[in-house]
Amino acid sequence: MPKISRTGLSVPASPIRKLVPYAEEAKRRGVHVYHLNIGQPDIPTPDGALAAIRAIDVRTIAYTHSAGIASYREGLAQFYTRRGLPLAAGQIIVTTGGSEAILMGMLATCDKGDQIIVPEPYYANYNGFAAEAGVEIVPVRSFIDDDFALPPIAEFEKLVTDRTRAILICNPNNPTGYLYSPEELRQLREIVLKHDLFLMADEVYSDFCYDGATHCSVLSLDGMDEHVIMMDSISKRFSMCGARIGALVSRNPAVIDAALRMGQARLCAPYAGQVAAEAALHTPEDYFATVHDEYKARRDFMVHALRGMEGVKCPLPRGAFYTIAELPVDDADRFAQWMLEHFEYKGSTVMVAPASGFYAAPETGRHQVRLAYVLNIDDLKGAMEALEAGLKTYPGRTC
Amino acid sequence: MPKISRTGLSVPASPIRKLVPYAEEAKRRGVHVYHLNIGQPDIPTPDGALAAIRAIDVRTIAYTHSAGIASYREGLAQFYTRRGLPLAAGQIIVTTGGSEAILMGMLATCDKGDQIIVPEPYYANYNGFAAEAGVEIVPVRSFIDDDFALPPIAEFEKLVTDRTRAILICNPNNPTGYLYSPEELRQLREIVLKHDLFLMADEVYSDFCYDGATHCSVLSLDGMDEHVIMMDSISKRFSMCGARIGALVSRNPAVIDAALRMGQARLCAPYAGQVAAEAALHTPEDYFATVHDEYKARRDFMVHALRGMEGVKCPLPRGAFYTIAELPVDDADRFAQWMLEHFEYKGSTVMVAPASGFYAAPETGRHQVRLAYVLNIDDLKGAMEALEAGLKTYPGRTC
Repeated sequence: MPKISRTGLSVPASPIRKLVPYAEEAKRRGVHVYHLNIGQPDIPTPDGALAAIRAIDVRTIAYTHSAGIASYREGLAQFYTRRGLPLAAGQIIVTTGGSEAILMGMLATCDKGDQIIVPEPYYANYNGFAAEAGVEIVPVRSFIDDDFALPPIAEFEKLVTDRTRAILICNPNNPTGYLYSPEELRQLREIVLKHDLFLMADEVYSDFCYDGATHCSVLSLDGMDEHVIMMDSISKRFSMCGARIGALVSRNPAVIDAALRMGQARLCAPYAGQVAAEAALHTPEDYFATVHDEYKARRDFMVHALRGMEGVKCPLPRGAFYTIAELPVDDADRFAQWMLEHFEYKGSTVMVAPASGFYAAPETGRHQVRLAYVLNIDDLKGAMEALEAGLKTYPGRTC
Repeated sequence: MPKISRTGLSVPASPIRKLVPYAEEAKRRGVHVYHLNIGQPDIPTPDGALAAIRAIDVRTIAYTHSAGIASYREGLAQFYTRRGLPLAAGQIIVTTGGSEAILMGMLATCDKGDQIIVPEPYYANYNGFAAEAGVEIVPVRSFIDDDFALPPIAEFEKLVTDRTRAILICNPNNPTGYLYSPEELRQLREIVLKHDLFLMADEVYSDFCYDGATHCSVLSLDGMDEHVIMMDSISKRFSMCGARIGALVSRNPAVIDAALRMGQARLCAPYAGQVAAEAALHTPEDYFATVHDEYKARRDFMVHALRGMEGVKCPLPRGAFYTIAELPVDDADRFAQWMLEHFEYKGSTVMVAPASGFYAAPETGRHQVRLAYVLNIDDLKGAMEALEAGLKTYPGRTC
């Protein structure tokens, strides 16, 4: 029997994959499961985007341009420019989700065995793309007691080798919710210029910043046009995860050229998603304000509830819609499974994402979980009550 | 300035990319360009698929399952089973076009530096996926004088090394239109079993077979369940290239597991495309009959016209909607550019795909072009007249 490649074997399973059967079994038992484990928002997709899909009246659903529908690229360039990031359509490749943009960015900058430094904890799927591209992710640790701020640049410096090709950040961060400050980005700028690296930034949560903080894009950094690759997506901005439309954005023409050639190989991004994405560009500003206020209220509620639980540590994240909490449990993976397998409170339980999947060394996140505040406040209330009750009952409680 | 990776540089540009500006310039001059260069059918997408897109009434376009919407996978398994290929939903991963299925197949079977033997001429985008996966394509030559039949197995045998992981065929073939016979597939079966390889088959044109010939899928080969990976797509079957929905199909659970993990990394295939694809499964049989008859008439018309031109050699392809023709020209790349830049006939010209892009050694296809019969007969008539007139006028004519 022929063997799967080492590459194929090294693409990790989704970290919550092993929990899914327990969640399904809980549902079969009639237990309601609050899903705080995945960043699938319940926010409605803008009406204009949905209407545009329903209004599709082509005779044949044909390939689009490999770089994206021209009018959408143009509209997206204007969208960024209005937000203070002057860009032209030719500096954008429309991708199949932010996911494809990340894979393209890795492939355009790295050969097999090359390294990308990434602050950890980091988005688990970076591991999958890195395995596919043959890239080694070199983690630089951030800590819950610092709210997961950027690690000191000296820590990055220690990790730079002759195989280092890029630093990759996610800003605001998934899974921590941390929003990098302009000062932190300037520090990254220095080290990137010093070692002639690429700076890749996954900015798919840029619309979700709280407490008056504003997002600082890597595209706003001076003198970095050749170094910066920004990965964007409409999945969270317009609550359209299933549309699979993202973008790779760079002012470095060689990066765009490489991404376009990869884009030509796979022909084009999906048509209906692009149509919806283009229509979504005309979403009224009050949509963003409403969504912002909703998420802020959810965050405030959830963080307050978590901080009120004995033995729980939780930063106040200023971006995205996640937080990492430290729980008084012996092992967060075991706790997560136990919540689904053995626990219910008023007919409900909670599914959390153990943080081990977000660290390169799984032991590191042993007491931490990622919680997504993607449910409405009523549901979050039920979820927090069940979580608190679960923590009180869990046999592996540590305090 | 940081450099693009060798990987990024090695993804080839689309072979017709350098012709596109000439086509655009011709259009600006008011010349009508018949596009025989790309497999974008003008056939209408089935009404049911378009209606399903227009009927999308979700509130939020959410992620689907990473393996595909469960009911679509189930429906697709039944579709294959009805066609004599017994399959279960768990043996199918819904992909973002056939393109993603090919990349996943390469990654699941090959590590960097591993080799896949592919009969040439072959679909040019295999080169892009191979570059991304770090895989070396080893071509085994097929010849126009044999109608591009499968090269003798002895020729494959010569190329097998300890790095050979798979043989990849496209059946019916793009770019040649050749339909492999059951006997040719049995020959491939022998060598695959002998050397314990994977047999990957891109069968996205399986609905397009003519002259009473039937398609023989690699999934029908005995004792090959562990070895076979089939890549499918709805792009051509339902004339929905822009939907970006394909499938990776295998009865080898380790292959499906690897593909699923890659699928989890990129989250899911596009939602609207999957909805349309599922609806398209209910397309009435007469759609296929009508489309078949239309393509057969086009093929017959085009091949007859080509064979009537002095110095032109053209096989009668029995599948897909392409043919490779040998032209009496010094250099098909130069001829293709000249047709766009310097020629018009009754206000029109023709864009062809030089075959050099379909050969590993570009010199090999120097006198050949790929022609897609994706236009209606009236347009094909105009295109053939313009091509014939162009061949008569072209200064680099060789006979």
